[in-house]
Amino acid sequence: MPEGGLLDPRDPAPAVRERVHAWLALQARGGFAPVAARAALAAARGEPVAALRRLTGETPAAVLGRAALDTACARLARSGAHLLPFGAPAYPARLAALADPPPLLAVRGEPASLGGPLVAIVGARRATPYGVGSARRLARQLAGLGFGVVSGLAWGIDAAAHRGALEAGGRTIGVLGCGADRVYPREHAALAAEMSAAGAIVSELPPGAAPLKHHFPLRNRLISGLALALVVVEARARSGSGISAEHAAEQGREVLAVPGPIDAPTSEGPNLLLRDGAAPALDASDVLRALGRTEEAEAWLRRRRGAREGEDGGEAALAPEARALLAALRGAPATRDELASRLGLAPAALAARLLALELDGRVAEDRAGRLRVVPR
Amino acid sequence: MPEGGLLDPRDPAPAVRERVHAWLALQARGGFAPVAARAALAAARGEPVAALRRLTGETPAAVLGRAALDTACARLARSGAHLLPFGAPAYPARLAALADPPPLLAVRGEPASLGGPLVAIVGARRATPYGVGSARRLARQLAGLGFGVVSGLAWGIDAAAHRGALEAGGRTIGVLGCGADRVYPREHAALAAEMSAAGAIVSELPPGAAPLKHHFPLRNRLISGLALALVVVEARARSGSGISAEHAAEQGREVLAVPGPIDAPTSEGPNLLLRDGAAPALDASDVLRALGRTEEAEAWLRRRRGAREGEDGGEAALAPEARALLAALRGAPATRDELASRLGLAPAALAARLLALELDGRVAEDRAGRLRVVPR
Repeated sequence: MPEGGLLDPRDPAPAVRERVHAWLALQARGGFAPVAARAALAAARGEPVAALRRLTGETPAAVLGRAALDTACARLARSGAHLLPFGAPAYPARLAALADPPPLLAVRGEPASLGGPLVAIVGARRATPYGVGSARRLARQLAGLGFGVVSGLAWGIDAAAHRGALEAGGRTIGVLGCGADRVYPREHAALAAEMSAAGAIVSELPPGAAPLKHHFPLRNRLISGLALALVVVEARARSGSGISAEHAAEQGREVLAVPGPIDAPTSEGPNLLLRDGAAPALDASDVLRALGRTEEAEAWLRRRRGAREGEDGGEAALAPEARALLAALRGAPATRDELASRLGLAPAALAARLLALELDGRVAEDRAGRLRVVPR
Repeated sequence: MPEGGLLDPRDPAPAVRERVHAWLALQARGGFAPVAARAALAAARGEPVAALRRLTGETPAAVLGRAALDTACARLARSGAHLLPFGAPAYPARLAALADPPPLLAVRGEPASLGGPLVAIVGARRATPYGVGSARRLARQLAGLGFGVVSGLAWGIDAAAHRGALEAGGRTIGVLGCGADRVYPREHAALAAEMSAAGAIVSELPPGAAPLKHHFPLRNRLISGLALALVVVEARARSGSGISAEHAAEQGREVLAVPGPIDAPTSEGPNLLLRDGAAPALDASDVLRALGRTEEAEAWLRRRRGAREGEDGGEAALAPEARALLAALRGAPATRDELASRLGLAPAALAARLLALELDGRVAEDRAGRLRVVPR
């Protein structure tokens, strides 16, 4: 069995298959009644077969049918998803603490990424270049600070947030409004693949589930539920993002909003959130501040100011060797070995030069072990 | 002597001339030391001749010279300004309560307008169309709610704020960084003339004073000092408007800021104010809310929502006679008599129809007694 209580839908061992089937049946019956599912699980001490019997009085095969169970497992296996059941050690603690945690998550990628410090960035599908640029820049900055970025893989703000995090070599997590074996919209298949290599794609919906309209509010509660803070970038008044912000506040998450023109319908949502007391998100320092990390916020602003004043990212003030290292890496991420050979340096000499740049947040290693220049 | 303790610089009576000269001398010596001037005035029980003697040991003519006094009076008289000394009944109470009230104000226009409910709208000279439009719309809305609009008659945001108030038939007050007998910039002479007919032009600087750089911070403290609240529309980081906001907060004024794009240098000032706790100004309701007038704020928003939903300003829901009246008035302000003849109505019949529209805030009478449709 994989680490952290994850279940592999391809695992042929009968004991594992039985549990996988029971979880899938619990998901199918209990997915839209997570509170009842959780009560049944608690009464059954986390045992899915017994919990399913309490909830439905039936076996997995009786609930879903043998063929449907096989299809579900095959779909999950094909997409490379694992199952992460409620109660498993790897189940994200922030979701477990919700009033309505999903009984079962399907995860493509790195389940551990669901537990780190995450910030949700959400907003309108029909976003403006201003919103897309703001989401992307904020995500880059947050990734540079070590935050993973959660969003919903949708057009517009969501995709920009994921892309920004990836550009900075950071982690990013997409929560789907369809089964984890699908990608919606389809045009984001390549993005989703990149994300599952640098974070995760997650869904609480059964494999094969279509992206139906009523799935998205459920999906949105997981986006904020996974995160420490929610940033709304662009949204119309009375839109889904406004509701997400309300839910986030109920979940105890910090809510931030990106200010925008008061005559732009796409900024009416965030501006109204500001009126209601959300913190303005001008840059990543506002997220740190909202999380009570005030000194780090000030330090980040000072670093950035220093970098801006140098105009070249403050590099003029660096030693020539450090500048050469950044130049060799810029636009061409490389492993430590590749970089050492590019610069003609012994690994130990490279490590010494890298250390200061890494501590300074100028260079970061991405999930694939490649070093990148962190955009300022 | 005019009402409220105002002094006419053209008044030939020797007792008045002596006082005018003493005030002008006090202004010249005490203008940049208003705290000392006020102490001398208090010790002299408000008598300017005695106060001047306490402050300088001299007579007005010894301080300024007879010729300079005559020139100053002539300048003021030519521009139509009256003098409003500290301690006079018409001296604005909010200025008198400052730590550093000006010993003498020169006022062109209606001194009573300085005492009403005022909101300051300020910002950058080099403003964008977004900032100019926002200032103008906010000023129109505030004027429609009965607020006078204070600003500095400068290019950009200031002029837009004054114009918006005038468009809505409201009062507006310009505080100058030069003598009240001058207009800076000169291109705003026509605007200043319109303003002094629908509010006032004010200066604490001696007649003839040039618009020197160091005058503007002093001028700014009066803009916020006259008002209940200060709204910063567009400003660069570390600009004069930021300092104005700090002074306004020290003076106990509510500080609001118009949100703008986080990547626009012209909105960096207001966005940083939001970060520091200023209330966002999306529309006039935010000013009402900042002043604790929450119910009025909600009522205003409801009215506006109703108006928007009607698309035609909610007029479809009005009686046909009311709609005809608005149509007759729109774009063509008119006195009650003119309007009665336009509509072929007896004055009493017109008054009955007007009443509901005036109570509803759809029609307002401007300072010249002309009825106008209030923009929504």
